[in-house]
Amino acid sequence: MLFHVRIEVNIPSHVDHETVERLGKLEHERAADLQRAGKWKHLWRIVGRFANISVFEVESNDELHAILESLPFYPYMNVVVVALCRHPGALSAAT
Amino acid sequence: MLFHVRIEVNIPSHVDHETVERLGKLEHERAADLQRAGKWKHLWRIVGRFANISVFEVESNDELHAILESLPFYPYMNVVVVALCRHPGALSAAT
Amino acid sequence: MLFHVRIEVNIPSHVDHETVERLGKLEHERAADLQRAGKWKHLWRIVGRFANISVFEVESNDELHAILESLPFYPYMNVVVVALCRHPGALSAAT
Amino acid sequence: MLFHVRIEVNIPSHVDHETVERLGKLEHERAADLQRAGKWKHLWRIVGRFANISVFEVESNDELHAILESLPFYPYMNVVVVALCRHPGALSAAT
Amino acid sequence: MLFHVRIEVNIPSHVDHETVERLGKLEHERAADLQRAGKWKHLWRIVGRFANISVFEVESNDELHAILESLPFYPYMNVVVVALCRHPGALSAAT
Amino acid sequence: MLFHVRIEVNIPSHVDHETVERLGKLEHERAADLQRAGKWKHLWRIVGRFANISVFEVESNDELHAILESLPFYPYMNVVVVALCRHPGALSAAT
Amino acid sequence: MLFHVRIEVNIPSHVDHETVERLGKLEHERAADLQRAGKWKHLWRIVGRFANISVFEVESNDELHAILESLPFYPYMNVVVVALCRHPGALSAAT
Amino acid sequence: MLFHVRIEVNIPSHVDHETVERLGKLEHERAADLQRAGKWKHLWRIVGRFANISVFEVESNDELHAILESLPFYPYMNVVVVALCRHPGALSAAT
Amino acid sequence: MLFHVRIEVNIPSHVDHETVERLGKLEHERAADLQRAGKWKHLWRIVGRFANISVFEVESNDELHAILESLPFYPYMNVVVVALCRHPGALSAAT
Amino acid sequence: MLFHVRIEVNIPSHVDHETVERLGKLEHERAADLQRAGKWKHLWRIVGRFANISVFEVESNDELHAILESLPFYPYMNVVVVALCRHPGALSAAT
Repeated sequence: MLFHVRIEVNIPSHVDHETVERLGKLEHERAADLQRAGKWKHLWRIVGRFANISVFEVESNDELHAILESLPFYPYMNVVVVALCRHPGALSAAT
Repeated sequence: MLFHVRIEVNIPSHVDHETVERLGKLEHERAADLQRAGKWKHLWRIVGRFANISVFEVESNDELHAILESLPFYPYMNVVVVALCRHPGALSAAT
Repeated sequence: MLFHVRIEVNIPSHVDHETVERLGKLEHERAADLQRAGKWKHLWRIVGRFANISVFEVESNDELHAILESLPFYPYMNVVVVALCRHPGALSAAT
Repeated sequence: MLFHVRIEVNIPSHVDHETVERLGKLEHERAADLQRAGKWKHLWRIVGRFANISVFEVESNDELHAILESLPFYPYMNVVVVALCRHPGALSAAT
Repeated sequence: MLFHVRIEVNIPSHVDHETVERLGKLEHERAADLQRAGKWKHLWRIVGRFANISVFEVESNDELHAILESLPFYPYMNVVVVALCRHPGALSAAT
Repeated sequence: MLFHVRIEVNIPSHVDHETVERLGKLEHERAADLQRAGKWKHLWRIVGRFANISVFEVESNDELHAILESLPFYPYMNVVVVALCRHPGALSAAT
Repeated sequence: MLFHVRIEVNIPSHVDHETVERLGKLEHERAADLQRAGKWKHLWRIVGRFANISVFEVESNDELHAILESLPFYPYMNVVVVALCRHPGALSAAT
Repeated sequence: MLFHVRIEVNIPSHVDHETVERLGKLEHERAADLQRAGKWKHLWRIVGRFANISVFEVESNDELHAILESLPFYPYMNVVVVALCRHPGALSAAT
Repeated sequence: MLFHVRIEVNIPSHVDHETVERLGKLEHERAADLQRAGKWKHLWRIVGRFANISVFEVESNDELHAILESLPFYPYMNVVVVALCRHPGALSAAT
Repeated sequence: MLFHVRIEVNIPSHVDHETVERLGKLEHERAADLQRAGKWKHLWRIVGRFANISVFEVESNDELHAILESLPFYPYMNVVVVALCRHPGALSAAT
């Protein structure tokens, strides 16, 4: 089941540089794991913004929420989820 | 070069049913050609709406506009384009 | 899997009264079937509007889209879907 | 009488971790009491957000306000209330 | 129980002048009845707009919806309802 | 002359609890005086929000601004004023 | 008493050219009368739009509404009124 | 050449009272100079807000920007500029 | 003096194809004249929309409005004008 | 390939004056380099705002993002990118 997820990251100024670095590293590790596991299907940066557009493939809404909540930057993220489904004009199964 | 394209289709009531059917068929043919040509990388329906989210891979902005303008439903589409780029946390090249 | 669905119905003036009556009757029949089948868990009217808030329980995004698309008033609906999940403070399983 | 309540929680950075933990525990206790009392009928988390959608059943607007104001996280909540009523297509009494 | 109701009236151009006149007369009669019955507590016009702000006092959400739906102009109204309650700084009981 | 005034209060976190308490007490005293003077005709709380809807009866725009500016919480208020006038369907003079 | 009034005119396509011409002439006559009477203090066109910004000086909200309602294009106007008052930094009395 | 300028002032809490007082005094002096010079044609307060609506008469866009940037409160202002022109229904030259 | 002008064209369905063709041809001729005259400095299409972004260089606001009003598609345009000025970081004079 | 970029700069109050000065100087140097390199084609200030509108000519979305991210004020910028293409009515090639 596919979900379109737009994430905007907004780190408040009181978070020191080292913490941001450390969380960023953990974030990339976590993202890599989820990509390898086939959960995080696509991940693109929006040009000019500290924001990205992703497509997740999960078993359920609860799994998607658990994944998002597990991201190190989650407390600083504004997340908007859109449920996707197969488009009648798509050639391949929706992936 | 990748672009995120959200398309909402809004067919006015004065367009008769046959025209909608015919344009819809042409739309799917055109979409199939563009998918086979590797231009229209992803195509998903948004649950509950006559709208879709697509990712296009094109050589230039002009090529993207030409493709969108060539779609049979284009006169009835509200199109919003977002330029994408490679995310530092993405494992594979941005596709 | 639960989804929050807000539906606003907007019937254009060119649809004659009989059609609206007929579709409304079919809509209620379809809604009754889906409620009996346990798919359409909750259905409330928003005070003062031709709009409702529903909660659907479905197996997948595709099933939800198929259900919504099958509603007789679907061509006149503005539908906004929000994915729900279990709240840690909820006593019973999320239903 | 049913009300749809969307709550977004936004805890400012100056609130220390222990306070958040303590308030969160109190919040869950209060929510459990209100669910057992039949006032807080439904409670769902919105996927990807520190936000929830609830349905309350109360005797009056004043009772609803008193309940919301009694929640430990209330000072950090953005609350939007929508009055619900029975939908003509709902099979059971609106609950 | 008090509700703040903002109503904007938007009569489509295909409704002929006589119908508008007739509905307007019925609307005023219905409004007068509801004011005499103590249900429609306040009714003000917004300067410069075909819109009004009202305060209703009703027993329940269902009663409010039934009242609004009974208004002759209802099919042409955009209605936004806000639940009110007693303000701690108000001298008299909330009326 | 009547004005509809929506006030949302937003007290920044750096204002200490004692100041808020003291200002709140002064605010209620000031509100009581203005209600007794017949200037502040109605005062309702919006359910679930630190916000209210009021109706003021004043001689002029300048008087209204002077009254609003005199409120102890004014520096923390977001105020939106809407000019009201007599509705042709209102039974009594607009009060 | 001064009011800032933004008016956007939106004439539907079913109104024939002659009617628009005739109403436009009446509108200018009415506007001229109100300017000579000192009620319509300022009248500016917004560059690039069929919209204007005006300042009216009236005795009351009811007078302002009566004036606006008397304009020949009123049925096609979207009117937004903002109450003005004297600015402490203005040299002359607010006109 | 006339411009409509809406200015909302938002002084952050870290600016101490003396600075605000001093800047406010300088702001009024600067505003008085510009009014005497015929540049700042109109200056009104919006009722209930720390905001104003002004009309400036300048030689060029660059002059307008230089004037606005020279205001002592400029760093705390949200400024929205709208270009005005002569309205065909205005009796006098646009002033 | 430079202005940024965003134009969205929305031709209603009742305008027949021949009229659109004819107006489109006139529009391009008029645009060519204004470009040759140095008034219409830049003209770009927004990808995916029947909209464009332009920069005009004119003597005054009135000249800009006269130019925009003279465009054959003007009755179907939604025009938003933003006044530009020289940026301190721009190498060449603002053109 | 051309992109329209609107940048609003919002420097938080905790950044000291010297840092802002230093970053501003670096920003202008970087902007000058990019203008000389033919990447930053146009740069205008929006009248009354700490914001600008630019047009960039780049080889790809990735190049545009790299340029924007390299700007010293980037962490304080709100950037909105719009893809441009050749307008059929433009006389010269789109520059």
